[in-house]
Amino acid sequence: MIPETVRIPFDQLHAELARILRQKGFSPERAGASARLFAETTRDGVYSHGVNRFPRFLEYLDKGYVVPEATPVQTGSLGALEQWDGQRGPGNLNAWFCTERAVALARQHGMGGVALRNTNHWMRGGTYGWQAADAGCIGICFTNTIPNLPPWGGKDARLGNNPLVVAIPREGGHVVLDTAMSLYSYGKMEGHAQAGTQLPYEGGFDTAGNLTRDPNEILKAGRPLPIGYWKGSGLSLALDLMAAVLSQGLGTAAIGGLGTEYQVSQVFICLDVSSPAHFGERQSIVDAALDFMHGAAPASPGESVYYPGEKTLRTRHENQTRGIPVELKLWQDLQQL
Amino acid sequence: MIPETVRIPFDQLHAELARILRQKGFSPERAGASARLFAETTRDGVYSHGVNRFPRFLEYLDKGYVVPEATPVQTGSLGALEQWDGQRGPGNLNAWFCTERAVALARQHGMGGVALRNTNHWMRGGTYGWQAADAGCIGICFTNTIPNLPPWGGKDARLGNNPLVVAIPREGGHVVLDTAMSLYSYGKMEGHAQAGTQLPYEGGFDTAGNLTRDPNEILKAGRPLPIGYWKGSGLSLALDLMAAVLSQGLGTAAIGGLGTEYQVSQVFICLDVSSPAHFGERQSIVDAALDFMHGAAPASPGESVYYPGEKTLRTRHENQTRGIPVELKLWQDLQQL
Repeated sequence: MIPETVRIPFDQLHAELARILRQKGFSPERAGASARLFAETTRDGVYSHGVNRFPRFLEYLDKGYVVPEATPVQTGSLGALEQWDGQRGPGNLNAWFCTERAVALARQHGMGGVALRNTNHWMRGGTYGWQAADAGCIGICFTNTIPNLPPWGGKDARLGNNPLVVAIPREGGHVVLDTAMSLYSYGKMEGHAQAGTQLPYEGGFDTAGNLTRDPNEILKAGRPLPIGYWKGSGLSLALDLMAAVLSQGLGTAAIGGLGTEYQVSQVFICLDVSSPAHFGERQSIVDAALDFMHGAAPASPGESVYYPGEKTLRTRHENQTRGIPVELKLWQDLQQL
Repeated sequence: MIPETVRIPFDQLHAELARILRQKGFSPERAGASARLFAETTRDGVYSHGVNRFPRFLEYLDKGYVVPEATPVQTGSLGALEQWDGQRGPGNLNAWFCTERAVALARQHGMGGVALRNTNHWMRGGTYGWQAADAGCIGICFTNTIPNLPPWGGKDARLGNNPLVVAIPREGGHVVLDTAMSLYSYGKMEGHAQAGTQLPYEGGFDTAGNLTRDPNEILKAGRPLPIGYWKGSGLSLALDLMAAVLSQGLGTAAIGGLGTEYQVSQVFICLDVSSPAHFGERQSIVDAALDFMHGAAPASPGESVYYPGEKTLRTRHENQTRGIPVELKLWQDLQQL
């Protein structure tokens, strides 16, 4: 059942995706930038939001949800905090732009924030964490989504899974957390359902209201589990409220009314920790924490402790060396476009 | 097994705690302020970090971990972001001070952050969320702790449970999330162990490495569960790194080396959303989200959906009206001091 894959060199994948985006109305420069983010996401092993997501991105372009040449417009400034309207431009380009802007504000004010409304799915959220950390900043980014997660105590989806990204810069490999507020994504559950396997841990409720590892039962009930039950439910709400209030954009409830996920709200906060005068112990503090954590006795023989982002670097290196795995059928389809 | 309680009027509880703090070397003003925070926390129903925690606070004063008259000293400024040293002063007064400072920075710059090192347990973290929201700010606050949570994939405690607070101001009742990164606190597990009851959900691993609802087994193994398994493990690490790097203070690993939880690191971020010109839709956005969430079909008959902070207001009102429940034995002990 595992689809046949081919390994494509990064430059070839990048060029192919850029070619298609130019065809869809992107300028050469913007096509290259957006395609680069898709290719890098795939290279880093986040296939679900890399090339595997590309066909749906094209569909949203065709339907007009995503406007290729639209760029963010500033709607408000309070000094270190700014408000922008994404004009329904490509989500990854908008998010990249706003992270750059938050970095610039952080350089000026120590910390900076950009609240972005009326934008599109940012694809891999971790991208903007790596970006902030590469600039010597701590990054805190989050987005809201369509309703896809029942609140604790309720049955139907009234919250988003609202991914949260936190990045801390570190020589030798940044710490980059990229986590949705649901324990398992719909994509992950569908993958297990197709493979006929149970989830590793209880991932939601069945229609009878019992916790289950059976992805089919959870999908049937539409009741995936928030991380930490009531805790993730509350955090999901808080992220949505912050994104919508700060940007004065749509909240999850209103996005649900659109029927399709677009016009979402996002926040990008950067804290500049690049100054040795103020943050001289940065590297030693982070290294000490990682060493301490890595030193934990394994939960079971052969198991290891990883920091968020650690496996990404390995996958990145492997895919850079061996080529990026792409499903053969998808690769053939893309080449036909 | 439930201890006998008495209901004490707020002013009486406040006065009693303030009297004891004056006796421990607090100035009248600071004794009143710290006692007020303990009394308000108790009034709001967070007994574990209100009056029930007071004896340990006194013990830490006696042992010199907490210095009554020490106040934060500024160690760095980057504009909207400041660094302070808490001088091991009382954790709740230090945190209150830094939240005030973050609010002031947010008024000036749109957003502001204070990173505080060398401080003490802030008691109820939610306090600073309510404080920020009362000032018309979104508040994001977090603290690190001693190692008390195994990282995902590991057996022994190498992470803190690092509580995170997020507050969004709202007329009619703020949304205030106050959540540790462990699913159940040690206090909660010990309570169930004493009562001989199982946890509502699997809260950790037993010594054989199996998930269990038995609090005794989890306590024996020392393996409480992070919220969302690997996700909460990663978020806990990220919070610790941010707190220690931004404040240039101790991380969880170093705090563990002290043997007792003091000299912790904390961060207080405020975003000023009080300006109607920039945030005119604030109330309607929040109300729409809460209405939408409240409208979810109940997970089981009679169950309800609550936003974080909703139950707090009810408890606050009840305890204000009927008096604040305090364990009789504790109340008698306090009066003897």
